[in-house]
Amino acid sequence: MQLKKNNLSVCLSPALFPFYNNDDSIIVIVDLLRATSVISTAFEHGIKDIIPVKSLDEAKAYQNIPNHIIAAERNTKIVEGFHFGNSPYHYMETNIIDKTLVLTTTNGTKAIHLAKENIVVTASFININAITEYLKQQDKDVVILCSGWKNRFNLEDTIFAGTLSNFLIDTNLFKSNCDSLLASQNLYMSGKTNLFEFLDTSAYRNRNNSLEVIRDTKFCLNPTFKSNIIPIFKKDRLIPLKVG
Amino acid sequence: MQLKKNNLSVCLSPALFPFYNNDDSIIVIVDLLRATSVISTAFEHGIKDIIPVKSLDEAKAYQNIPNHIIAAERNTKIVEGFHFGNSPYHYMETNIIDKTLVLTTTNGTKAIHLAKENIVVTASFININAITEYLKQQDKDVVILCSGWKNRFNLEDTIFAGTLSNFLIDTNLFKSNCDSLLASQNLYMSGKTNLFEFLDTSAYRNRNNSLEVIRDTKFCLNPTFKSNIIPIFKKDRLIPLKVG
Repeated sequence: MQLKKNNLSVCLSPALFPFYNNDDSIIVIVDLLRATSVISTAFEHGIKDIIPVKSLDEAKAYQNIPNHIIAAERNTKIVEGFHFGNSPYHYMETNIIDKTLVLTTTNGTKAIHLAKENIVVTASFININAITEYLKQQDKDVVILCSGWKNRFNLEDTIFAGTLSNFLIDTNLFKSNCDSLLASQNLYMSGKTNLFEFLDTSAYRNRNNSLEVIRDTKFCLNPTFKSNIIPIFKKDRLIPLKVG
Repeated sequence: MQLKKNNLSVCLSPALFPFYNNDDSIIVIVDLLRATSVISTAFEHGIKDIIPVKSLDEAKAYQNIPNHIIAAERNTKIVEGFHFGNSPYHYMETNIIDKTLVLTTTNGTKAIHLAKENIVVTASFININAITEYLKQQDKDVVILCSGWKNRFNLEDTIFAGTLSNFLIDTNLFKSNCDSLLASQNLYMSGKTNLFEFLDTSAYRNRNNSLEVIRDTKFCLNPTFKSNIIPIFKKDRLIPLKVG
């Protein structure tokens, strides 16, 4: 029986990361709409590994390498000249088995790089159960890092952080003294009967009213499949770790 | 009739301020427990002006100047060698009429300095009605800046920001596209029937279980008097502006 509880906290923006991190924590990156949901989807559909890059130029460098898919999103739109954008459906509807995905997005891929001195995994509603199992087994402090929107707080990552916090606190393996965790749990409880409706007036929904993004949003909040894969960052890329 | 609505947003930590500010916004500083409640209390009890300083050494420089009270709090405790700490009761129980208060606190006075290129006012439940009236009359964008705890998010400033946001949105003079504002409103609605109980598991309450701080906390959440004074920053100090 584990006697010492590990510390769990929620960091609401990449710009606050220095005030929540300690070197030995596992960092769980959340960019629910849509990067970390895309990452879970791509692994579940057979991608071999995912290289998150910070800039469009870095992504373009992979353009002519066989078996590499390059994907880029800026301000919710696919960037010209790239194969894919940031919709999970792109990765369900194409054969991506054993390929490498090179991905750059507005917020999520930057958050991964910010935290990469620590152990970094990515989470979404697709792999939330697997992430919970994985974290139960590690006996380490955990920081759930919300990618936000250009360093601003966002609701969608926060309600996911609240859900995952509930799961982890329920294991009795974690303690917390973190107001952002309490806030995220409270916000999740307020919204959980209909997360899509809860986000109705959110900044994300105000920015994105295309049919495609609405379909993606519904999927990311209530995915049609689950994954037991933990995307974990090693060297320069996310690789799939299977749990259970 | 004002046709154009001004923008209202909530910034959850001083470290996020660059992502919320624009040069023309009025900044409303919140450090509910206890600096901005102390500031309202001191003005209501006759203090002439308040010099917020960042360091203990800066405060000590005023030590031998007549009619100056020096007050310093670090980690919720009064600092040795200073007249006052950060309890509102200190300012009700002593004659402070026409004196100058030199104040340094863990978070609030730093937030004032961070924002001082803009118009800066300070808010608490003591002067929330006056602040609402003042902001209605200015026809400017407003950022409510939560002082937080050493750049971490805190619940107490956030629920105050949610209350003030409700008041301001109800005037129909402000619009918002800010997820932190939605979150703060939601958290206030969750806690409003008993704010003291709502903060029961908060980090502030975990740090502070002395009888004095509990008494102060109850006062700051539900003050026994109101003030129509707007503390506004001019040059190097807060001066009292009367509204209504």
